[in-house]
Amino acid sequence: MTRRYLSGVQPSGLLHLGNYFGAIRSHIANQDNAFYFIANYHALTTLRDAAAMRQNVFDVARTYLALGLDPERAVIWRQSDVPEVQELAWLLATVTGMGLLERAHSYKDKVDNGIVPSVGLFYYPVLMAADILAFDSDVVPVGKDQVQHLEMTRDMAQSFNARYGEVFRMPKTELGVPEPVPGVDGRKMSKSYDNHIPLFPRSKKALKKHVMSIKTDSTPLDEPCDPEGSALLALYRLFADEAQVDALKQKLLGKGFGYGHAKLELLALIEAHFSDAWTRYAELGAHPERVEAVLRAGAAKARPVARAVLNRARAACGLD
Amino acid sequence: MTRRYLSGVQPSGLLHLGNYFGAIRSHIANQDNAFYFIANYHALTTLRDAAAMRQNVFDVARTYLALGLDPERAVIWRQSDVPEVQELAWLLATVTGMGLLERAHSYKDKVDNGIVPSVGLFYYPVLMAADILAFDSDVVPVGKDQVQHLEMTRDMAQSFNARYGEVFRMPKTELGVPEPVPGVDGRKMSKSYDNHIPLFPRSKKALKKHVMSIKTDSTPLDEPCDPEGSALLALYRLFADEAQVDALKQKLLGKGFGYGHAKLELLALIEAHFSDAWTRYAELGAHPERVEAVLRAGAAKARPVARAVLNRARAACGLD
Repeated sequence: MTRRYLSGVQPSGLLHLGNYFGAIRSHIANQDNAFYFIANYHALTTLRDAAAMRQNVFDVARTYLALGLDPERAVIWRQSDVPEVQELAWLLATVTGMGLLERAHSYKDKVDNGIVPSVGLFYYPVLMAADILAFDSDVVPVGKDQVQHLEMTRDMAQSFNARYGEVFRMPKTELGVPEPVPGVDGRKMSKSYDNHIPLFPRSKKALKKHVMSIKTDSTPLDEPCDPEGSALLALYRLFADEAQVDALKQKLLGKGFGYGHAKLELLALIEAHFSDAWTRYAELGAHPERVEAVLRAGAAKARPVARAVLNRARAACGLD
Repeated sequence: MTRRYLSGVQPSGLLHLGNYFGAIRSHIANQDNAFYFIANYHALTTLRDAAAMRQNVFDVARTYLALGLDPERAVIWRQSDVPEVQELAWLLATVTGMGLLERAHSYKDKVDNGIVPSVGLFYYPVLMAADILAFDSDVVPVGKDQVQHLEMTRDMAQSFNARYGEVFRMPKTELGVPEPVPGVDGRKMSKSYDNHIPLFPRSKKALKKHVMSIKTDSTPLDEPCDPEGSALLALYRLFADEAQVDALKQKLLGKGFGYGHAKLELLALIEAHFSDAWTRYAELGAHPERVEAVLRAGAAKARPVARAVLNRARAACGLD
C-alpha cells in the first residue's frame, strides 16, 4: 500500500516566498496520495475574525491550486469539514497525562513570552494528534519546531493502543529542514518582521518594490560586488540553476553591473517562475465556487477515512 | 416557549437509593420538555472497559425507562450519539483562559487527592459547558458540587458571545439540594463506601440482606427503641407518609417491636414502591432492542438542536 503523506496548512493570511520554499513547494512535489487540510480549527486560537478566517482559508486553497495541486492526485480539505477529529481528540485526551501537555515547548514558549494562554492553546497538541491519527497517516513532514508535537502524537497513540488494543497506525516523522529563506533584510523571512516577498503580489509594481528593497552593501557601481553570503544571492539561488548563479556572480564581480541590476534579474526569474500561477490565482479569485467545489470534494474523500478510524476508536472504548 | 430542562447522567454502573432520591426521582418528576443525556464521553475519564461502558449505558437507560421516563415527554440519548458537543467544546476552549480551568474545584480536589490527572479530567468542564450550551438549555439542576461548573459554563458562553455576538443562550442554575440519603452504616450512601441499598437488586433476598444490615443501636427487644436520628428512620421517611412514620415510631417506642421488625416494614415499603419498576427493568433487560430504539430516537431529536446551535457558533467564527 502506498504510504499516506499528511500535512496541515495554517490559513494565516498573506503567503510569501518563505512559505513557498519552506513547505508549499514540497507539498506540491509530494502530492501523490497526499492529504492536506487547511487548519481553520487551529487558527481559531489566534484569528477571531470570521470574514478574515473565510478569506484566509479560500486564499490558501487557491494558492495550492494555482501552484499545481491536482485534486485528482492529492486530497485537500477544510479541517472543520471533517469534525470527526474533535471527537477523536477527546478520546485521546482521556488517555493523555497533563504532564505531557505541560512539557510542550510551543505552549511554554508562548506563556514565557507573556501570552495569556487559552485552553485551546494548551489542548492544541491533542487536536493535532487527532488530525494525524484520524487519517492513518504514515508520514508527516515537519520542521524542527514540530518534532515534539509528532512525538506527543506517538505517545498518545501508544497510550491509547496500550489500553484499548491496536487502534491507531503509528505515524513516522519526516524531517524536512529546508534552509530558511532570508527576507529582504537578511533575517528569516517572516510576516512579523515585515521583510517578506509576497507569493501573490497585488501587482508587478508591488513585487518590484519588495525585490528592490533587498538589503545589500553599498559597493559603488564601478567597483566589483561580492555577493557571497548576501540575502540577494540566497534568494537568487532559489530560482536559478548553478550556471545562472555563476554567471550572475561573474557579472557582479565585474564592473558596471551592480546589485540593482542583479535585483532586476531576480525579479525576472520570480516573474517567470510564478507567472502561470499568478494567472491561475486570479482566475480562481474570480471563481470562488471552483475552489469551494475542490474543498468539498476533498472533505468527501477525507471524511470516510476519519470516520473509519474514529469508529475503530469508539468501538474500542465501548461508545458504539 | 417552555423552558428546557437539561441534565447529564453518569453511566456509573450500579445505581442505588442515593441516586434515586438524589436525582433520578426528580428527573422523572420534571420530565416534560426535559433533555437527559447519558454521559459516556465523560465516563471515559474513569471507565476504561468497553463492555462495562456499554452495559452501564444500557443499565442507566433502562433504569430511567423502568422508573417512568416517557420518551414522548422527555428526550434521552447517549452523549456520544450527538458528537456535535465535541466540536462545540473546541470553539469554547479557544475563548477560555487556562486560569478558569485551573481554578476548578473538582480538578484541584482530584489532584490534591493524589490522582494523576489526564487532559480529559482537566478539559472536562469545557465539554460540560458544550453539553449545556449545545441544547439551548434554560435550566440545569445541579447539586452544590456542580455549581462552579455552571458558573464556568456561563463564563465561557459570555466570553464567546462577547467576542462573536449573541450565539449562546445563558443557562440558569437550579439548585436542587436534596438531603443526602444515608447508607446502611449511617454515612452518605455511596458505592465507594459499600453501604448502599441497590435500586435494582438481583433478588428480593439480596435486597433483604442489604436492608437488614442497616446499622442500629443494640437496644434489647423488650425495651423501647428511640429511632430518631437513625439511618433506619431516615430511609423509612423516604418511602412513608407522616402517619406511617408516626405509627412506626410508636411501635418502636413500645415493647416487643424492635429494629428488626422496623427493617422488615421498610423492606415491604421499598418492595411496594419499586415492584412495578423491577418488572419493567427485567422486561427491558430481555429486550435490549427496545432500549436501543429509545436512545436512537432520543439522539434523533437532540441532534438537530445541537446542530442548529453549532451552526450558529461556526458561522460566528467563520468556519462555515
